Amino acid sequence: MSQNYKAVIRYDGTDFYGWQIQKNGPTIQSEMQKAILKITSERPTVIGSGRTDSGVHAEGQVANFVLSRPRDVDRLLRSLNAVLPDTIRVIHLSKTAPNFHAQFSVRRKIYWYRIWNAPVTHPFWQRFTLHVTDDLDLESMQGAARHLLGRHDFRTFTASGATTETFQRDLYVSEFARHGRMITYKVAASGFLHHMVRNIVGTLLLVGQGRVSPSALTEILQSKDRRLAGPTAPAHGLSLKKVIYR
Amino acid sequence: MSQNYKAVIRYDGTDFYGWQIQKNGPTIQSEMQKAILKITSERPTVIGSGRTDSGVHAEGQVANFVLSRPRDVDRLLRSLNAVLPDTIRVIHLSKTAPNFHAQFSVRRKIYWYRIWNAPVTHPFWQRFTLHVTDDLDLESMQGAARHLLGRHDFRTFTASGATTETFQRDLYVSEFARHGRMITYKVAASGFLHHMVRNIVGTLLLVGQGRVSPSALTEILQSKDRRLAGPTAPAHGLSLKKVIYR
Repeated sequence: MSQNYKAVIRYDGTDFYGWQIQKNGPTIQSEMQKAILKITSERPTVIGSGRTDSGVHAEGQVANFVLSRPRDVDRLLRSLNAVLPDTIRVIHLSKTAPNFHAQFSVRRKIYWYRIWNAPVTHPFWQRFTLHVTDDLDLESMQGAARHLLGRHDFRTFTASGATTETFQRDLYVSEFARHGRMITYKVAASGFLHHMVRNIVGTLLLVGQGRVSPSALTEILQSKDRRLAGPTAPAHGLSLKKVIYR
Repeated sequence: MSQNYKAVIRYDGTDFYGWQIQKNGPTIQSEMQKAILKITSERPTVIGSGRTDSGVHAEGQVANFVLSRPRDVDRLLRSLNAVLPDTIRVIHLSKTAPNFHAQFSVRRKIYWYRIWNAPVTHPFWQRFTLHVTDDLDLESMQGAARHLLGRHDFRTFTASGATTETFQRDLYVSEFARHGRMITYKVAASGFLHHMVRNIVGTLLLVGQGRVSPSALTEILQSKDRRLAGPTAPAHGLSLKKVIYR
């Protein structure tokens, strides 16, 4: 009797070539599949909620995989963590319905983008934050971020040449929080296009630097022209915080 | 005209043999002195507020050093950070009075000891937290921690064989804070004996595990017998948070 498993995974993406298996180096997916092979002698495909780019982190990536024999989940979780690199951790593991699919069953995803806004980097946080030395106008960034809420065609904020069925996404949350020197952009949507969060952050940083006005965001969004948006913010500030399922 | 400088330093202590210069490997002090030599061609001794052990971190270590030529502090700070390993950062640099001595002028020190209390480690925090899987009774730990407040002979909590003029210290803060899975023990004192915070934490963990009662702390403290205290908690949970001067 085969059994479908759902795993919630945290990782420090610094040393990986993203989620998806690559020829040129280790990825989260390849490390997960290696660990499962080592522990169970089975070779399931580990399906993630979506790819994360090279260097992007996750606090709540979700994946599923099918094993031919049923396993004790607590024991399997401990065994997997014992063989995974210590920068990847399975934090929850549960048996799930056969039709649960980590990618196709997604209802909502939440990403956080962390900015360390200070003259000097923080040694504890440098792997997980973009270091920005400019004094950022957070109120303007907050105002600009709000213009993205709702259902829109987000073509402006996706990598040029991206192929996808539709560019329409529903944005439920788009806001900033500040704790001391740490600024966090929190964004939740029905789904994200390739580089969408990083391109949005790159644009909102221009607003924070006073180089783009908050109200210009609506225009930039409606233009569907990638060239009007800001540069793609670096991968290492980004973390897949949570995936919510139907 | 020689000039005394005061530096506030943050570091990820993982890869260093503590603060103090050692023959067997890199230390924070040796890296600071190397950086200063590189930038200024001078060889001052960099005096820290105190040693931190191998693997211990700092968010606010303070040091002073004297240069024979006056320097622009903003420029010197940037130059030092440009040549220091990226796990060490000077976050403030200022000119200070000739009689300022980072060790002898200390009025108060604040340490934080971080515990990640969850079944699985957190990849972002594993270098900076002690991982404890047991369900900890935080209320008992809090109660026990309070017994240490005030002026006491802390001999119980120092490394056996320690030589020091007096074992008496004033504890101003001794409390726990919890944010989700992160438990932080915050302790402030007029000064600390060698291994004192780590020995206190090792003892408070026994309380949290129900192996020592909170009220036993007074007895343990008064015994002046190291054997009655708990084991020395690992270095990597500890961080020198702040040093306050007269």
